Amino acid sequence: MNELKVLFHINESSRWQMVLGNITNLLNDVGQDNAHIEVVINGEAVSIFKDKCKQVESGNLCSVSPNLSLLEQMEKLSKVGVKFVACRNALKGQSIDEESIPDFVRVVPAGITEIVRKQAEGYAYIKP
Amino acid sequence: MNELKVLFHINESSRWQMVLGNITNLLNDVGQDNAHIEVVINGEAVSIFKDKCKQVESGNLCSVSPNLSLLEQMEKLSKVGVKFVACRNALKGQSIDEESIPDFVRVVPAGITEIVRKQAEGYAYIKP
Amino acid sequence: MNELKVLFHINESSRWQMVLGNITNLLNDVGQDNAHIEVVINGEAVSIFKDKCKQVESGNLCSVSPNLSLLEQMEKLSKVGVKFVACRNALKGQSIDEESIPDFVRVVPAGITEIVRKQAEGYAYIKP
Repeated sequence: MNELKVLFHINESSRWQMVLGNITNLLNDVGQDNAHIEVVINGEAVSIFKDKCKQVESGNLCSVSPNLSLLEQMEKLSKVGVKFVACRNALKGQSIDEESIPDFVRVVPAGITEIVRKQAEGYAYIKP
Repeated sequence: MNELKVLFHINESSRWQMVLGNITNLLNDVGQDNAHIEVVINGEAVSIFKDKCKQVESGNLCSVSPNLSLLEQMEKLSKVGVKFVACRNALKGQSIDEESIPDFVRVVPAGITEIVRKQAEGYAYIKP
Repeated sequence: MNELKVLFHINESSRWQMVLGNITNLLNDVGQDNAHIEVVINGEAVSIFKDKCKQVESGNLCSVSPNLSLLEQMEKLSKVGVKFVACRNALKGQSIDEESIPDFVRVVPAGITEIVRKQAEGYAYIKP
């Protein structure tokens, strides 16, 4: 079988679970050695990388972030080869420090350019 | 004119009318012999196939489903060649029995894989 | 560098700012001479062209349209080569007179057909 090439685009936080579920279903269906998968994150969806602790105005304790399990799922997927790419414009727009985001996420100057280039390379586009 | 190849992706119930309207407009514009159209249904959008009667807890009467006219529109489109494909993962997720869905709908193991393969075959992708 | 070809699809009014921001980011990233950009507008998103004055039932004064700054942004983008294409079916559906929409917007019989054709020409598809 030819390897599948797939670009997932997410720009709304509410779609994270759908995106990660779609990827899991795809990998279960075709096998992780048979798909090149990249997720481009822009717009408001980059808020998954916000450090919740900084938003607590009083007290030292951080509440457990509801994003934690999503980030854990992302990290597991990255370990089987799924690539995650965040848009620098979007990170700036949400005042998120690039240094604070997980190592498995690559930052590009413009997420839209990445989406266009990947499609030109033959990647299918999916907007979950 | 070359035949057009188009893949419509729907994963939210609220988009059904838009999807079916888009297909109707496309067929009216180019003619039904000039387009290969496939609709891949995953996520929450498969709930259109839920049997409303089973949800009525008391009484023998089923209220008329608001999905009925949508299903009728789908069936009409299937008769002019539009293909409808549902994701097995999504059907399981919504506890919908595969045997209960209309005969004109084909079930695939993973809707996402179908979307990727169709794009690799030259189908345009549209997310209404 | 090869020129990039990109088709943006918008069918919801709430996504206008995202679409125009995405285009601006793309142009800033690759340069306006290096991208062919087309925006296909269908569904409810064509309501940006509604003449707000006609909706005021009493009095002669028109309130300033909240769409005005969006239209100004669109016009600026059109001057650097971004093409805007509206769907006639959608305009009719919203009772918008074709003569009333800005000159820089081209009207096509069916927006969906335009999206399919552009992808067949090698345009990447993005749904912001």
